Amino acid sequence: MIAANELLAPVAPLDRGPVNGNGRHRHAPEPALSAETTTLKRSVMRDLLKLTVAPDIISLAGGLPAGELLPVEAFRECLDAVLRRDGMRALQYSPMHEPLRHWIAAAMRARGVDCLPEQVFITNGAQQGLTILSRLFLDPGAPAVIEAVTFTGIQQVTAGRGAVVRTVPTDLSSGVDVDALESAFRREPKPRLAVIIPDFHNPLGVSLTIEKRIRIAELAARYGVPVIEDDPYSSLRFEGRQLPPIKAFDEAGFVFYLGSFSKMLAPSTRLGWIVAPAALMPRITVLRESIDLESSTLIQRAVSLFLERGLLDAHLQAMTAANRQRCDLLLQALSRHLGGQATWTQPEGGLFVWVTLPEAIDAWDMLPEAIERQVAYVPGTAFAVEGGFRNTLRLNFSNVQPELIPVAVERLAAVIQARLRR
Amino acid sequence: MIAANELLAPVAPLDRGPVNGNGRHRHAPEPALSAETTTLKRSVMRDLLKLTVAPDIISLAGGLPAGELLPVEAFRECLDAVLRRDGMRALQYSPMHEPLRHWIAAAMRARGVDCLPEQVFITNGAQQGLTILSRLFLDPGAPAVIEAVTFTGIQQVTAGRGAVVRTVPTDLSSGVDVDALESAFRREPKPRLAVIIPDFHNPLGVSLTIEKRIRIAELAARYGVPVIEDDPYSSLRFEGRQLPPIKAFDEAGFVFYLGSFSKMLAPSTRLGWIVAPAALMPRITVLRESIDLESSTLIQRAVSLFLERGLLDAHLQAMTAANRQRCDLLLQALSRHLGGQATWTQPEGGLFVWVTLPEAIDAWDMLPEAIERQVAYVPGTAFAVEGGFRNTLRLNFSNVQPELIPVAVERLAAVIQARLRR
Repeated sequence: MIAANELLAPVAPLDRGPVNGNGRHRHAPEPALSAETTTLKRSVMRDLLKLTVAPDIISLAGGLPAGELLPVEAFRECLDAVLRRDGMRALQYSPMHEPLRHWIAAAMRARGVDCLPEQVFITNGAQQGLTILSRLFLDPGAPAVIEAVTFTGIQQVTAGRGAVVRTVPTDLSSGVDVDALESAFRREPKPRLAVIIPDFHNPLGVSLTIEKRIRIAELAARYGVPVIEDDPYSSLRFEGRQLPPIKAFDEAGFVFYLGSFSKMLAPSTRLGWIVAPAALMPRITVLRESIDLESSTLIQRAVSLFLERGLLDAHLQAMTAANRQRCDLLLQALSRHLGGQATWTQPEGGLFVWVTLPEAIDAWDMLPEAIERQVAYVPGTAFAVEGGFRNTLRLNFSNVQPELIPVAVERLAAVIQARLRR
Repeated sequence: MIAANELLAPVAPLDRGPVNGNGRHRHAPEPALSAETTTLKRSVMRDLLKLTVAPDIISLAGGLPAGELLPVEAFRECLDAVLRRDGMRALQYSPMHEPLRHWIAAAMRARGVDCLPEQVFITNGAQQGLTILSRLFLDPGAPAVIEAVTFTGIQQVTAGRGAVVRTVPTDLSSGVDVDALESAFRREPKPRLAVIIPDFHNPLGVSLTIEKRIRIAELAARYGVPVIEDDPYSSLRFEGRQLPPIKAFDEAGFVFYLGSFSKMLAPSTRLGWIVAPAALMPRITVLRESIDLESSTLIQRAVSLFLERGLLDAHLQAMTAANRQRCDLLLQALSRHLGGQATWTQPEGGLFVWVTLPEAIDAWDMLPEAIERQVAYVPGTAFAVEGGFRNTLRLNFSNVQPELIPVAVERLAAVIQARLRR
C-alpha cells in the first residue's frame, strides 16, 4: 500500500534532506550534488507503479503489459536451451549477439526500412536508446524538440542533458502537429534533436497518419534535425493497418529508430535497439561502453532463440487479443459512465487511453479521492512538459483484469461526478 | 581475427566519416554531434577483447574471468527455479529485488561496513554505478580526482561528464599515493569526486594497505570530497588476508562503494551495486530511471537464488584456485624469461599483473610484433590518463589456459629481446 499524499509529493524537486544513511550524523556536511540532480524530477508514474501491487485498488495507472500473458514457459525453455547449447559463452562478456541483430534488421525491412544488421545496436530497452542518442547529439544548453505531452522518460533524458526544450502540440487523432514541428525546426538556433512517438502514443494513445510520417522524415532531412522515433508499442496493434515507421521514409539518414522487447516480449528482458547509420556505430559503441559496457549476452541469446523458434507471433496474437478486449471494455464503460461529460482517444493498439474531463475538474487534485474509492490513474499533467492539461488523465487497459475494468470506470465516474456536484 | 593495425587506430578521436549506413548519400549533410561524442575515446581494451577469440593467438590482453569455470549448470538451474517459482513476476517490470539487497547488505556488513538493505542500489555492473555517481556529483567542468593509471571505464565516465581531471600517482606495492591525494583534495576549486580502485587494481594488480584505506576515508570526510571505491575484484583474493573496504572506515558518509557480480559470478549477469546513504536513494533512483529504468528482475532473482543456495563460496574457491595457479605460472615465467630486465607487480588476487620493461622499449609500438609472434597484451599507456608509461604493459592471467602461459611469456620475451638487440 501507499499513502495518497505520497503520490503527490515528488513532482517538485526533491527535498535536500540529510544524506547519511544511519542518521547518526544528521548535521554533518554533505557531498555537493550536481545541478542536474537537484533539478531532475521524479517520474510520478514510477511511484504510481507501486499502486499496481495493492490488491484492493483497481489500478489503471500502470504501463505494464498483461502479466498473465507473459511467455513464462517458452522463455524458460529458451534460457535453458541457450545455456545447454552455448555453455560458458552465454555467461561471458561478449560482442552483440549477431543472430539477434539479423532478426531485428529483417523485422525492420519487413516494415519498409532499409536496414542491415550492422545498422542495429542492442540497448537495455528504448530508454537506454534515448540516453545514448541524447548524448550523441545534444550538448548542454542545446535546443531539443519534444511533444508538449509525452512520456516522462523522454522529458528526463532531455532535462538530464540540460537541453532547452521546445514543445510542439500533438493532435489527438493524427499525432504530432507537423506544421508546429516545422516552425520549431526553422527557429534559430537549430534544434539538435527531436523525439516523437509514432504509434499508440504514451500517454495519448494516438498514432501518426502516414502523411505525417512522410512529412516528418522530409522535415528531418530538410532542416538537418535528427529525429528520434521512439517506438516501443507498434507491434501491439489490435485494429487497423500497420503503418511503416517514420524511418521507412528516411532517405537522408536523419531518422533514428528505437525499438523495444519490453512490451513486445517481456519487460525483464531489458532489451531494445537503435537503428542508425552503420558509420555511427563506433561512436554509439563508445557511448554505450562508457555507460554500462554491454547488454547481457545470455538474455540476448535467449530472446534471439525465442524469435528464431517463431514464438513471437503467437505471443503477440494472444497479447493483442487481450488488449483489444480490455480496450473495448474500457471505451464502453467510458461511454456508459462519462458519455457527454468527457472525451477520449480511440487507440488501435498499445496500452493507453487519454481522457479529457470537463475544464472544471483538476485530475491531479482529484487523485486522492479516486484512491480513496480504490481506483488509480495517472493525471495527465504528469506528462505535460510545460504544465497544464490538468483536466486530463491516462488510463491503462493492458494490465487490468477485464471484469474489473467496468468497476474501475464506474468508481472513477462517481468521483468525477461528486466533484462536479460541489 | 583482427589486423594488428586495427589495434593501433582508435586511441585518437574517431574519424568523422560519412554517417549514412548504405553509402548512397556519402556527400549529404550529416547530423551535428555533441562535443562529448567527438572527444570521447574508444577503449583500446575493447578492441583487444576481439583478440581473445582468435585461436592462434595466446591473449594475455583480456579482462575476463576464466570461462570454463563460469557456473553454467548452477545458474541454469537457478533461472529455471526462479521462473517456475515466480512465474510472470520474474518477467514483469519490478522494483529492486529485496532479497538481493539483503544479501548484499549482509556481505558488506561481513566486511565491516555498516550497511542496511536500503543503502544498496542495484545497477548494471560497476560501470553503471560509475555513470550514476558521476551524474550525481559532477557538473560539467568540475574537478575530479582519478589515479594517473587506471581502468579506462573510469576515464570514460569522467571525460563523458566533462570533468577537469586531476591525477594522483599509484604506488606499485601499496596503492594510491595518499599524500598526493590530499594535495589534490586541498586544491581549489574543491574536487567534486574521486575514484579509487582498492583491491587488485586494474591494470596495476596492487591493493591498498589498510593504513591507506583508513586515511582515504578520513581525507574524504575532512575535505568533503565524495570518494567512489570501485571494487569489482576483492572477492577474487587467492593470497593474504582480506582487507576491509575504504567504506568500512567511512563515518561521515563520503565514501560510495561499487560492487559487481561480473567477475564474482558471471559477466552476463550485468549486475552490480552501489552502497550509498539511504537518503540519497531517491536521487539515485531518478538518475537510474532516466538512464534505462531498472535492472532485469529475472536476473536479479536468479543471482539472488544462486547466493541463497550458498553456491558462491564453492564457485569463488574454484575460481581463485585457478587464478592462483595461473598467476604463479605467469610470475614464474616472467622470472625465467625477463628476470633482471623487467619488473612486475605481485598480485594477491584479481586478474592482472603490471609489467615495467626497460625504458628503451615502447610497448605500444611493439604490439604488432607481439601479435605477429601470436601473443597479445595491453600496452600500459592505454590506461595512462595523461599519457606516458610507454614501457609498461598489462598481462591477464585469469582467462588463459595454464599450459599456454609459459609459452606466451616466452614469445613475449623473444619480442622484447629482439627489440633490445636492435
